[in-house]
Formats: sequence, structure tokens, C-alpha cells
Amino acid sequence: MSSSDIFIGETIGTAILILLGAGVCAAVTLKASKARNAGWLAITFGWGFAVLTAVYTSAPLSGAHLNPAVTLAIAIKDGDWSNVPTYWAGQMLGAMIGAALVWVAYYGQFHAHLTDKEIVGGPGAQATKAKAVEAQEAGAGPVLGIFSTGPEIRNVWQNLATEIIGTIVLVLAVLTQGLNDSGKGLGTLGALITALVVVSIGLSLGGPTGYAINPARDLGPRITHALLPLPNKGGSDWSYAWIPVVGPLIGGAIAAGIYNVAFA
Amino acid sequence: MSSSDIFIGETIGTAILILLGAGVCAAVTLKASKARNAGWLAITFGWGFAVLTAVYTSAPLSGAHLNPAVTLAIAIKDGDWSNVPTYWAGQMLGAMIGAALVWVAYYGQFHAHLTDKEIVGGPGAQATKAKAVEAQEAGAGPVLGIFSTGPEIRNVWQNLATEIIGTIVLVLAVLTQGLNDSGKGLGTLGALITALVVVSIGLSLGGPTGYAINPARDLGPRITHALLPLPNKGGSDWSYAWIPVVGPLIGGAIAAGIYNVAFA
Amino acid sequence: MSSSDIFIGETIGTAILILLGAGVCAAVTLKASKARNAGWLAITFGWGFAVLTAVYTSAPLSGAHLNPAVTLAIAIKDGDWSNVPTYWAGQMLGAMIGAALVWVAYYGQFHAHLTDKEIVGGPGAQATKAKAVEAQEAGAGPVLGIFSTGPEIRNVWQNLATEIIGTIVLVLAVLTQGLNDSGKGLGTLGALITALVVVSIGLSLGGPTGYAINPARDLGPRITHALLPLPNKGGSDWSYAWIPVVGPLIGGAIAAGIYNVAFA
Amino acid sequence: MSSSDIFIGETIGTAILILLGAGVCAAVTLKASKARNAGWLAITFGWGFAVLTAVYTSAPLSGAHLNPAVTLAIAIKDGDWSNVPTYWAGQMLGAMIGAALVWVAYYGQFHAHLTDKEIVGGPGAQATKAKAVEAQEAGAGPVLGIFSTGPEIRNVWQNLATEIIGTIVLVLAVLTQGLNDSGKGLGTLGALITALVVVSIGLSLGGPTGYAINPARDLGPRITHALLPLPNKGGSDWSYAWIPVVGPLIGGAIAAGIYNVAFA
Repeated sequence: MSSSDIFIGETIGTAILILLGAGVCAAVTLKASKARNAGWLAITFGWGFAVLTAVYTSAPLSGAHLNPAVTLAIAIKDGDWSNVPTYWAGQMLGAMIGAALVWVAYYGQFHAHLTDKEIVGGPGAQATKAKAVEAQEAGAGPVLGIFSTGPEIRNVWQNLATEIIGTIVLVLAVLTQGLNDSGKGLGTLGALITALVVVSIGLSLGGPTGYAINPARDLGPRITHALLPLPNKGGSDWSYAWIPVVGPLIGGAIAAGIYNVAFA
Repeated sequence: MSSSDIFIGETIGTAILILLGAGVCAAVTLKASKARNAGWLAITFGWGFAVLTAVYTSAPLSGAHLNPAVTLAIAIKDGDWSNVPTYWAGQMLGAMIGAALVWVAYYGQFHAHLTDKEIVGGPGAQATKAKAVEAQEAGAGPVLGIFSTGPEIRNVWQNLATEIIGTIVLVLAVLTQGLNDSGKGLGTLGALITALVVVSIGLSLGGPTGYAINPARDLGPRITHALLPLPNKGGSDWSYAWIPVVGPLIGGAIAAGIYNVAFA
Repeated sequence: MSSSDIFIGETIGTAILILLGAGVCAAVTLKASKARNAGWLAITFGWGFAVLTAVYTSAPLSGAHLNPAVTLAIAIKDGDWSNVPTYWAGQMLGAMIGAALVWVAYYGQFHAHLTDKEIVGGPGAQATKAKAVEAQEAGAGPVLGIFSTGPEIRNVWQNLATEIIGTIVLVLAVLTQGLNDSGKGLGTLGALITALVVVSIGLSLGGPTGYAINPARDLGPRITHALLPLPNKGGSDWSYAWIPVVGPLIGGAIAAGIYNVAFA
Repeated sequence: MSSSDIFIGETIGTAILILLGAGVCAAVTLKASKARNAGWLAITFGWGFAVLTAVYTSAPLSGAHLNPAVTLAIAIKDGDWSNVPTYWAGQMLGAMIGAALVWVAYYGQFHAHLTDKEIVGGPGAQATKAKAVEAQEAGAGPVLGIFSTGPEIRNVWQNLATEIIGTIVLVLAVLTQGLNDSGKGLGTLGALITALVVVSIGLSLGGPTGYAINPARDLGPRITHALLPLPNKGGSDWSYAWIPVVGPLIGGAIAAGIYNVAFA
């Protein structure tokens, strides 16, 4: 794979991943969306099939890492760091583009949601202010949760641990793919398995922090959230932003270590 | 593939696609259906597995395009336009037949739904009139949503953009299939992946417009809706009808362009 | 395949099919079940994965027809009727056994449900009687719906048509399997596709009649319902029983005809 | 496979199985979890995809039994008991570790849930005491259901029968894998089929007892529950603990017998 194929593949793939992943959060959250309140199962399957679509589409170009923690783990496993910067750059750019595309696809919904008095509140609106405060206390502005993850209970050590554990599961499944499929790479069936592993992590380990398990998935859309001209969008919660970056990277490194000790 | 195989395959396949796709909308919408109010997840999985069944069944005859935007993209990619009219004709005919079969399968349910005073309203029924007005404002007659898509917020540019974005994702996944499966065609596993990609687009990008992402899927059933002898069926919303035709065609063309530049 | 392998395979496979299929109906319906009110999506996925498990397990012995309409269609397609009686006998016996196993697995739940005053009613219980009458009007005794299908609206022609249409879709997908998988038979991936086709038919065409699409699936458990010593079980609705037998057989024959004309 | 590969593979695999399986129960049950009340479908898919992830990851090392009943059945089928103790030891250790990891990942949620006055009750809290009594009567302490199974209706013979029936279905599907996949082992597609069979058993046979169908899955986490320093955790219900151990072992043995008579 050439450097340009890697960069283009990761950019396209991660853009699709976030378009569909943040897209399902928009679909379930925003006013005037047909999918509103479709529930946690819709979110977890939505993210899982986002992985499926993104991996399947970008695998022929870049092998479909789409996740800096996966790239890190593969570099540790293979002892080859030469392409890491190219992968990471494509992933971050793609994630930011994908989040911007969600804004395009749900343009009217964002506006309706963020300017709705019942949801946002305004001068003199008691009940609405209470809602806004409640959202604030939950640790997120009104629509930040569409772009990036946030914890239900803020606790640095637990939040880090949950992201580390979730990423270990993801990366172990990705690394053992080569053993199961004897070198066929991240093609058709591998994409499906990875997707369902992500559904699994979402269902089972997503409760506390919203399962970033991917630094680009969280940081890229958070930057886009900060840049977009959304009314009443609230803050981007930068004080939490390092956890879904550092946690998954630690998890990826641990998974690579487990792989090298137990499986290699 | 002979022209007649293509035409018959696309007719059968698109008929099955719309029978099962519009079928799940009928199942979830209509009075006296066991699936009533089964929710958005049922609709998105229903459409996805409709694609699975239709692609799987018609692939041996016609390669299972079942979507004029897919046919357009493949023609651009291959530079071969000779079979495009045959594909499009089969797709439109199949879509109209499929929609008519939904009417047969749910005959009593349509009648019960459309003549139910609580739903349709009538002279002197205040509360019901309010409901009818609400349905009208939502941009659809009482059962048009079973046949064709409609936007939650009418905005030509956003609605077009959402359909374009969704179709790019679909067509990119279809076009990269050849790279992932090395020429094995749209067989067994390809049908499954395509189906889950459609579930993904539905969950993530279906909120604003109901994801036509296929001109035949929307226009064919809309014509059938206009022709069927349904009581109180309301209008067929022709002013919106061009968007789910033009948007997916633009999306398909863009996806073919991306493919030719980045993947070929 | 020997006759005894066919008979044993169909008996085991259809028993598993009905154990898991009628099982999910018991799970969702009965008092004191953890799955109570899990909804239509649970029922349709439950039946689909019941097909998966049953086909996968019995395919090595009998090729996993598990449905008299499939056996009929394959006999028409191949012009070979010699094994039809063996297949049908195994399917009927298996279906009856499977339904009896549901009764064993949910023994306490059946008893709690059928003797619960709130559900069944009794002398002097006004509100409960109303419920019983409502159930009666819906065309089923209190637990018959766990064993066999029944229509939401009784209309011989529509009910027949819905079963015919659903079975055509199922059998066409089964028959084209040979073309997609080039003779590999009903193995691993074929079982999965068939299962998801059944989920699709359930989601999209199950609303009016509950999608028998299989004479053994309906008649076998109905006989078991008539034989089981369940208190307050109500009638077995024999006046409807011929429709989910005749409809699927007609559908299977039509599908075989379409296959022979268009695909062979 | 060496003994150490088997032990390490089963430990890692069963740890992942229980981390994700008990994890989804925590996600759906606990206060301050984003997945709270996500429903039965989330639980059954969560357990199924837990099996997928665990089998896929550990198959290259140990063949991924992850269940003493599967190990027993394979020993009976092959007449080779030499590795049984190694498999069982790894499974029990892994299950205990997995349950402890759930506690880490949901640390704050457990604490919030178990010290919440509305849920746990305390001196003078009438309504809350009623809730606690209700939970007690349902046969489980407040969070035991996250770790281990418990019946809705306590009836030794029915509870045993339900676990036996469910395990027969599971083990038959596992044993016939070799026939369907001609010796390719528990690789990629086998992991997916097994996962969906487990979803099926959950949906269809999980209602009465919560479908342990695996002695290690139930006993390991129950021991961890007894050891963990959780406040107000309630008892570990040891009087029921033998049923989800003995039932699955009987079921596995019966399935091996059916396999040897009918399929071998």
C-alpha cells in the first residue's frame, strides 16, 4: 500500500465511520428526526454497522484501521512504525469531515433542536432552564453527545479503566483476525465480525462512558463541534477530552502486549 | 447476461425489494397489524433484509442492481451504457408491482386504517381533524409514507444533500465489493453486506428524509399509490417527488467519480 | 441421503425450529417470563434464528427442508417426488414434538398464565371477562397464539393471499441458493441467509396473519395444543387451520413455477 | 494445541465472554448507565455477540469451548478426556476474572445503584422496603442478576428441564459445525453461527431461568459476586447454584449422545 492510498483510504473510511456513527446519535437525539428516541439498541447497531460500512469500503485502499489505537497496536505487533503518522493523519482528518457531514445531513434538525424553546430555554422560561441545567450537570451541552462521548459519572480512574477495557477487547479481536482468516486480511467477513464486536462492546461496556474506544472517533468530532456555527451549542467539554484519547491508546498497547505474549 | 434475464431479474428483484420494504412500513403503520408501532429499528432492519432477500434472489439473473443510481454508477465506472435502459425499466416496473403486492397482502388493514374515524376524521370530529391536520403538516397523506419517502422538514437543499450523502455511502460500498470479493460478484456474502449497509444508512441518515437512496424505490410506489383505489388516501405529494429521484442519481454519479479517482 | 437420515434430520430439525419459534412466542407472551412484552422485533428475530439453528443442525442429515412447502417446491423443480412423504412425515412429527418441548420449558409459566385471574377471568370478574372476550374476538384462545398463527382480520381471500405471497418470497430465496452458492447446499452461509429472509418476511409480511409460511409449523403445534392438558386453554381454532396449510403449499408451487420459467 | 495454549485460550476467552455477557446485564440494570432499561433484545444480542467476540478471539489458541458442557460433549463424542480438566480450569478462572472486570468497568454505577435509597431502601423507607422485599421474593439480591441466573418461578424439575433443553440445542449446533464446515474448526463463520444460536436460545428459552446453558458462566460470576466488596449486595442464592451447573452438563451429555446416534 502506498502512502497516498493509506491516507486517502483512512480519510474516506473514517469519514464514513463518523458520518454514520455520529449520524445515528443525531438521528436518535434531534427534534424532527424520524428516528428520534429509537433507543440504545439503535445506537449500538448504528455504530456497529457504521464500522462495517467504513471498514468494507476503505479496506482495499488502506486495510481499514480507522482507529489510532488499532494502528498503534499493529505497529507494536509488527515492530513497524513507518506508516503510523500517515494513518493517524488520515483518521483525524476523516473524523472531522465525517462530523461535518452529519451537520449537513441534519442541518434543519440541528437548527430546530437548538432553537426550540422547550429544549434550550431562554429568558423567563423556568421549566426550560431546569432542563438546560440538568443537561449541563449530565456533563454535556445539548448536542455535544452527538459528536463526542461523555461519562455518566465523572471519575477519571473508572472512566479511563472502562475505555481501556473496551479497547482491549476490540483490538484483541482485530489482531486475532489474521489467525482466524489465515492472511486474507480485513475483507468481507472480517469487516462483519469487527462490526458485531463493536456492537457487543457498545451493548456491554458502553453504559458508563459511551465507548469511544477510538481516539479519532472522539477528538475529531469534538474539534468539529467546536468549529461549527451551531446556535446554543454549549461547550465542547475539553476537560474530559483527553480520557477517550489516552484510554484507547493504553488499551491498544495492552492488547498488543497480550497478543505478543499469548498468541504470537 | 441476456437482456431478458436482466429485465426479468430486475423486475422480480425490485418487486421483492418493495414488497418487503414498503411491507414493513405497512406492518408498523397500519391498524390491525400485529407489528403496529414496532418502531424505527423494525423499519430499518425490515428494509435492510428486504435488500438482502431481493439481491440474493435476483443476483443470478441480473446481478441485482435494483436501484437506478447503482446502475448509473456502474455504467460510469465501466463506461458501458448499453444495458442501462433495460435495468431502469425492470426496476421501475418491479417497484410498481411490489407496491401493489403490499396492498394485496395488507388489504383489510388498509381499509380498516383508512376508514377508521379516529385516524381519518370526518364531519364534526374535532380531535380527529387535528390529527389529520397534523399528518398534513408533516407533509404526507395518511398512508403515503408506506409507499414513498417524505421529509420531516421541507428544505430542498438539505433534503437533496441528505439523499446525495446517503446514496454516496451505499454506492461506494457496492462498488468496492468487487475489490473485496475479487470478482465473485454480488453473491451470498455481498448480499448480506449490502443489506447491513442499508440498515446502517437507515439508522444513521434516515432521520431527515426517510432515506430513499434509490429513485425506483420512491417513484415506483408513488405511482402505484396514485393509481390504487384506496379510500381517503390523500395526495401523492408530487411536489417532493423529484428530490428522491434526482438526489440519489447525483449521489450515484459522485460515488462513481470517487471510485474512479481513488480506488480504480 | 438415506430415508432414515431424512426422517431423523427433518424430525430433529423441525423440532428445534418449533421449540425455538413457538418458544419465543411463549417467552414474549406468558406471565412470569423474563422476556415478557419484548415486542415484535424479538418475535421476528426469534423465529429467524430458530430457522438458523434448525437448518444448521439438520442440514448434514436431511438437507434441512423443515417445511412441506419447501419440499413440494423442490420436488416440482427436480421432478422427483420419491422422498416427499418421508420429508413431510418427519416435519409433522418434529413440529408436534417441538411444541410439546415448549410446554415443558415453560411449564410453570403456562400454569401461572392460564390460571391468573387477571388474565383468564372467572365467576364475578367483570373486567377480566372483558379481557377474555377481547381475546376471543381477536380470534384466539389465551395461548393458542404461542402454538399457531391467526389473522388480525378474518378474510379468507386476503389471509390466503398473504400466506401465498410470503411463501413465494421464502421459497424463491431457498431455490436460488443453489445458483448463488454453486451446489454447496444448505450449509453454513445458506442457513444464515435463509434465517434473515425469514426475519424479513416476518417484519414485512407478518402483520396480517402472523406468517405461517410453513404448513408443518402451523398444523403440528395446533395438534399439540389440542392434545396438551393445559387449563383454560381455549379452542384450537380449527376453522382457520386449513389456510396456513393450503396457502403455503400454493405459494411453494408458484415459486417453483417462477423458478422453472425464469431461473432454470 | 498445547496444555498451556488451551488454559490461556479458555481463560482469555471465558473472561471476555463474561465481561461482555455480565456487562450487558450491568448496562441494562444499573443506575447511571446509558443503556439502562434497554430491554430483553439488548440482553440477548449482548450475550450472543459476547459469545462471538470470545469465540473469535480464543479459537486460535484453544478451539474456544468456553463452556464446560461443550467440553464434556466433545470429550464424549471423541472419547478423549485428557484435556477436560485443563479446559474446565481455564473456563472457571476466566469466568471469575470476567465478572471482576465488569465490576471495574461499572464501578461507579454499582456504587450509585446499591446505595441509592430509592432502590435499596433503609430505615424508615416504607416504599423502598417493599421494593427490596419484591426483589427478594423474585429470588435475587439487588445485583446478583448481573452475575448469575435465577428462575422466575422456582421449580427444581422445570428449571433443570429448561436448562437441559437449552443446552441440548446449543451443543447440537456446536457439534454439527464440523459436518457443515468440513473440519475448518470454530473459525470466523462458526463463531458467528454459534453467536446467533445463543441469541436464539436467549430469545426463545431464556424466559423461565435466564439461560445459563453453561456451568462456568453461572458459577464463576456467582463466586465473584460472593467475593466482591459491594455494599448491600444481598446473598448469592447458593441454594439455586447447582441447577445451572448440573442442568447444562446433563444437556451436553444428552446432545453428545444424540450426535453419536444420529449424526456420527
